Amino acid sequence: MEVTEKLYRLRQKMREHGLQAYIVPTDDFHGSEYVGEYFKTREYMSGFTGSAGTLVVTETEALLWTDGRYFLQAESQLKGTTIRLMKIGEPFVADIPEYLAETLLEGACIGFDGRTMTTAFAAGIRKKADKKKMLLITDLDLCGEIWRDRPAISASRVWKLKEEYTGQERREKLRVLRKKMCKRGADDLVVSALDEIAWLLNLRGSDIDYTPVFLSYMLIRKEDAVLFIQEGVLSEEIQSELFRDNIRTAGYDDVYAWTEEIPEKETIWMDDRSANYRLVLAAGKRHELIIGESPLQAMKGIKNSTEIRGMKEVNVRDGVAVTRLMRWLKTRVGKEKITELDVAHKLEEYHRQMEGYLEESFAPIIAYAEHGAIIHYEADEKTNKQIEPHGLCLTDTGAQYMGGTTDVSRTMVMGEITPEEKRLFTLVLKGHLRLSTARFKYGVSGENLDCLARGPLWAEGLDYNHGTGHGVGSLLGVHEGNQRIHWKIRKSVSTVPFEAGMVVTNEPGVYLEGKFGIRHENMLLCCEDKQTAYGRFLRFENLTMVPFDRDGIALELLTEEERETLNAYHATVYEKLSPWLTEEENEWLREATKPLVRK
Amino acid sequence: MEVTEKLYRLRQKMREHGLQAYIVPTDDFHGSEYVGEYFKTREYMSGFTGSAGTLVVTETEALLWTDGRYFLQAESQLKGTTIRLMKIGEPFVADIPEYLAETLLEGACIGFDGRTMTTAFAAGIRKKADKKKMLLITDLDLCGEIWRDRPAISASRVWKLKEEYTGQERREKLRVLRKKMCKRGADDLVVSALDEIAWLLNLRGSDIDYTPVFLSYMLIRKEDAVLFIQEGVLSEEIQSELFRDNIRTAGYDDVYAWTEEIPEKETIWMDDRSANYRLVLAAGKRHELIIGESPLQAMKGIKNSTEIRGMKEVNVRDGVAVTRLMRWLKTRVGKEKITELDVAHKLEEYHRQMEGYLEESFAPIIAYAEHGAIIHYEADEKTNKQIEPHGLCLTDTGAQYMGGTTDVSRTMVMGEITPEEKRLFTLVLKGHLRLSTARFKYGVSGENLDCLARGPLWAEGLDYNHGTGHGVGSLLGVHEGNQRIHWKIRKSVSTVPFEAGMVVTNEPGVYLEGKFGIRHENMLLCCEDKQTAYGRFLRFENLTMVPFDRDGIALELLTEEERETLNAYHATVYEKLSPWLTEEENEWLREATKPLVRK
Repeated sequence: MEVTEKLYRLRQKMREHGLQAYIVPTDDFHGSEYVGEYFKTREYMSGFTGSAGTLVVTETEALLWTDGRYFLQAESQLKGTTIRLMKIGEPFVADIPEYLAETLLEGACIGFDGRTMTTAFAAGIRKKADKKKMLLITDLDLCGEIWRDRPAISASRVWKLKEEYTGQERREKLRVLRKKMCKRGADDLVVSALDEIAWLLNLRGSDIDYTPVFLSYMLIRKEDAVLFIQEGVLSEEIQSELFRDNIRTAGYDDVYAWTEEIPEKETIWMDDRSANYRLVLAAGKRHELIIGESPLQAMKGIKNSTEIRGMKEVNVRDGVAVTRLMRWLKTRVGKEKITELDVAHKLEEYHRQMEGYLEESFAPIIAYAEHGAIIHYEADEKTNKQIEPHGLCLTDTGAQYMGGTTDVSRTMVMGEITPEEKRLFTLVLKGHLRLSTARFKYGVSGENLDCLARGPLWAEGLDYNHGTGHGVGSLLGVHEGNQRIHWKIRKSVSTVPFEAGMVVTNEPGVYLEGKFGIRHENMLLCCEDKQTAYGRFLRFENLTMVPFDRDGIALELLTEEERETLNAYHATVYEKLSPWLTEEENEWLREATKPLVRK
Repeated sequence: MEVTEKLYRLRQKMREHGLQAYIVPTDDFHGSEYVGEYFKTREYMSGFTGSAGTLVVTETEALLWTDGRYFLQAESQLKGTTIRLMKIGEPFVADIPEYLAETLLEGACIGFDGRTMTTAFAAGIRKKADKKKMLLITDLDLCGEIWRDRPAISASRVWKLKEEYTGQERREKLRVLRKKMCKRGADDLVVSALDEIAWLLNLRGSDIDYTPVFLSYMLIRKEDAVLFIQEGVLSEEIQSELFRDNIRTAGYDDVYAWTEEIPEKETIWMDDRSANYRLVLAAGKRHELIIGESPLQAMKGIKNSTEIRGMKEVNVRDGVAVTRLMRWLKTRVGKEKITELDVAHKLEEYHRQMEGYLEESFAPIIAYAEHGAIIHYEADEKTNKQIEPHGLCLTDTGAQYMGGTTDVSRTMVMGEITPEEKRLFTLVLKGHLRLSTARFKYGVSGENLDCLARGPLWAEGLDYNHGTGHGVGSLLGVHEGNQRIHWKIRKSVSTVPFEAGMVVTNEPGVYLEGKFGIRHENMLLCCEDKQTAYGRFLRFENLTMVPFDRDGIALELLTEEERETLNAYHATVYEKLSPWLTEEENEWLREATKPLVRK
C-alpha cells in the first residue's frame, strides 16, 4: 500500500471517530529507546525509517517532525508521500502542540493511542488543547486498524538470570524497594520501564532488539506485587518462583484496570518518563499520584560487586573482539577489498567467538572517512563505503554478554592521515585521558567534570554536539539512568551525583562534516578513592580494554601526565587481553600497546 | 549596661507588646554584606561581635545562632550573658523557625523589625508560624527603644562618579533597565540593594565600611524614577542632574508608603535577596509581584570597556602596593619585630601611596602560621602574632580606588618551610593556574569549571570549605552578583553563565588547623576567545598583578604547562609593575618573577 493510500484510509477512520487530527508517535507502551516491529506504526504510515519522529495527520495536511540527524533521510523518504517535513530546532518551525493549537479550530478533536505517548509529551499537547477547548481522545489505535499485515506483538520466552550474574535476589531487591516507597510515602509503585522490571525480577527476555527485556508492567504493593505480562512467556518454574516471592501475574493489558482499581486512599508512585499517558490517566482518576523518578533507576544504576565483576569480565571479552577487529582491519586494509559492512560482519564474527555473547547492544557504527562525521551513521547497502588504506575509520560498537553490556568507540588509522586528522585525534584523546584520571569529591556530578573532556577541544574553538557520557546497564540497556556527563545544567532534571558502582561512558569526539569523525570511548566504573578529614573522594577505573591506535597520536601534543596515563592504560590492556589471544595476536598487541616515549 | 540588663529591658518591652519572642537579626534595611554602626543591634544586645548571627529572646530563654567561623568567639563573648549558643550546622541543632515552632505555644506572638530581615528568612519563619497559628508583628524596633546611646544612622555626602570611570550615563542605564522591565512584564521596579542604586545612578557615598554606597531605595517607573534618600546628603548639583534625568527624590523612609500607593493594576518587580520583609509586605498588599533577581545584578556584573580599563589600572596600582609589602616583609622578617598588625598597617601605608586610593575593600586578613587556617581571621590586639623567619604568612587584602575594586590573596614564605607546606603551596597553585588558563564554550558557568581549581587537591584527598570564586564590583562591593565558581549546583538559584566583561576571583586554598593556611587569589576578567563554526568561546585574563612567592614552589610538582603559565604570568607582572617601582624594588621583582627552569 502506498503512503498516500494509508493516509487516505487513516482520514476515513478519523472521520468515523469525528477527529480533526491524529498523532502517530514512535514509542512503544514503555518509553523504550528501541521498539519492537509491532510498534513501528509511524514508520509504516509515513515510510520514514529513522529512529525518532512523529507523524501528525489532519483533514488536509500530513506532517512529520524529526531532528537534525534525520533531515536528509526524511526528505528523501517522504518524497511523493504528501507528508511535509518539520525540522525540529530550525527557526520558525512550530512544535506539535503549537501547530495543533494554531491550525485546528476551537473545539476540535485530537486522537492518538495514549499508550504510545510519554506523559510529558502528552501534557504539552493537553496544555495547548485546553486553552482552545479541544478534546483529546487517547484510546484510539487507528493505524492498527489500517495495518493489515502488522507483525504480531513480540512475546518471547522469559529467562532467568542466575544470582552468579545478578548478585542480589529479587526478594532482597523488593525489600529495599519497598523501604524506598515507604520513605517517599507511596503505597503503590507502578513500573513501566522494561529494564527496571527485568533488573528487579532478575529475568530477561528478547522482545526488543539490543536490550534483553520483555514486555510487561509491574505493580508493587506493600505486601505483594503483580507482574502484567503476555500469556505463555513465563515457564512454570519462573512462575512458581515468582509466586514464592509473593509476585502474582496478570494479563499484559490488565495493568490499566488494576491501576484504576487500587483502593482509593492509597498513593501511587509513577515515573512519567516511562509511564505512558493512558496509564497515568488511569492512575490519576481517583488517586493521589507521586510523579517522580522511579527508585529503581538509582538502585539499578549502582552496580553491586557481582555485577561489577561481570562488567569487568565482559569488557575483557569485548576487548578481545574489538582488538582482533582492529588488528584484522589495520593489517588487511589496502590488501583486500573491505567495506564498512564487511567490518560490521567481521566484528559480529569476533563477538560470536566470545563466551557468553548474546547479541549486539546497539546497531554498530562502522564509519569510514566522511561517514565518521555523521554521529548516528549506520552503513547500509546504499551507503556502504569501501575502506581505503588512508584516513580514519570510526567504530562505535557494543554487545550483550552473560554478565554485562559493553559500549566502545575507537578511531582506527587506515594508513596515511593528514596532520589535521592527527592533531584532532590527539586533542580528543587528551580530553578522554583527562576525564579518566579525574579524582573528585563525593557529591560531584557529570556537570562538574565534563570540562575535563572538552577542555582541549574548547581551547582550539572545537566542540562536539553530544554528551560526554551516559550510564550503561548490566545486561540491560546500553543507555540507562539519569547519570550523565554533560556541562549543560538542566533545570527540569536534578543532577545525579556519582556513586561508587556507577558505570558511565567517556566519549569525547570531533566531527568535520564531509571529512572525518573521531571518537574515543571507554566505559568507566566509578570507585571509592579515599576518605580523609576533608570528606569522601571518588575516582574512575577503565572497564573497556582496547588499545587506542598509536598511529593517530601526535606525541608532542600530549603532556607528560597524559602520556603516562596512556602508557599505563595500554600496559593494563596488554595484561588483561594477552591471556586470551594467540601468540601472533599478542605480537601485534605488544606493538600496539608499547609505551610512547618522548625522544 | 550589662547584656543581662538589656535582655531584662527587652523582655519588659516584649510584655508591653504582648510578644512571646523577639528576633534580632544582623542585617541593615538592604541586606548589605557589611552594615553601618546604627544597625548593629544584635552586637549591642548580645555582646557578640561576629559578622553573622541572630539573637532570639523568649520569655525564659535567649539564644544566639551563628556559624562555624564564630563558634569559639561566640562562646567566649557570650559567657555570663545567659545567652545560649546555637551552632548552625551541628547535628541536632534546630534552626530558628523550628525552634520557635517547637518552643512557643499555639497562637503566640513573635516580633521583629521587618526592615532588618531578608524576605527569604522571614518567609521561613512565617511558614512554621502559620502552621501553629502564631502571629508575626513585623514593625517593632524594640532594641532601638532600649539602645540609648545608639549611633545616628549614617548620612554621608553623596558624590558623583564621572563618566571617565563609569563609561555609561545614568540616562542610558535607565533606558536599558526599562527595556528589561518591559520584557519581564514589570511596570515598576523597587530597588533595595545599595550597590545597584550606586551603579545605576553613577553616584557613590560612604554610609557603609568598605563599600562606597549610600543608604537609599529606588522606585523605577515607566517614565520616571524616585530616589528615597536621607535629607541633606545630595548636593544641589547632583539633585538637579537627577531631576534632569527624570529622577525625583523623596524621604528615605517614604519608600514603604510610596510602594503601597503604586496604582493597583501595576505589576511590581522586587528582588527578595535585597528587599527587606516589610517592603515586600507593603508591595504585596494590593499588587501583583514579580519576585526575582534584579536586572541590575546582571547589568552591573558585566563591566563595560571603561570599567574594564579601570579594573586593569587599579589592579596594577594595588599590585605595586602588595608587591612592596611582600618585598618589605620577606626582606625584613627576622631582622626586626614585625607583627600581623604591623603588616596590616604597612599595607595601608603602601595603599595610601597609590593614586586614587579611597579605602580598604574589606578588613585585611594578615594571618601568620596557624592563623592562616582560620579562613576569616582578623588580627586584633589580643590575637596579634609576631611573624618569625619561617613558615607561611597568608595575606588576603583589597582596596577601593577611583576606577575599581581589588581583592588579592598571597601566601608569603617567611623563611624555612616544611616539605608539607611546600607541597600544599604548590598543589593549590596548580589548581589556581589550571583555572586561570581555562578556555570554554559560551554558556558554561562556574559550576562547570570549579573542578579545574580543586582537581589537584581532590586527587590528594584535600579540599577547601569555601567557593573558588565570587564576582567583584567596580568601585563597589568586593563580593557581588550571583556569578560564582563552586561545584555545588544549587537548586534554588539558577546558574549564571560567564559573560565577557564579568570579573570573578580565582582563590583555591588549603587549611591545616593549628598549622598553616594557603590561598592564592587573583581576580580574573572573562574575555571573548574565539568564534568558530562550533560556537562562541570565552577565556580568562588575570587582572591581579602580584608575584606568587617562588620560595613556596616545589618545581617538580608542576607540569610543563603549569610552569609555562606561571612564567608567562610572572613576565606580565614584571612588565606591568616595573614602570611604577624604584630601581631597588625592580631588582627584587626581577628575581621574584624570574622564570622557573627545570634542571
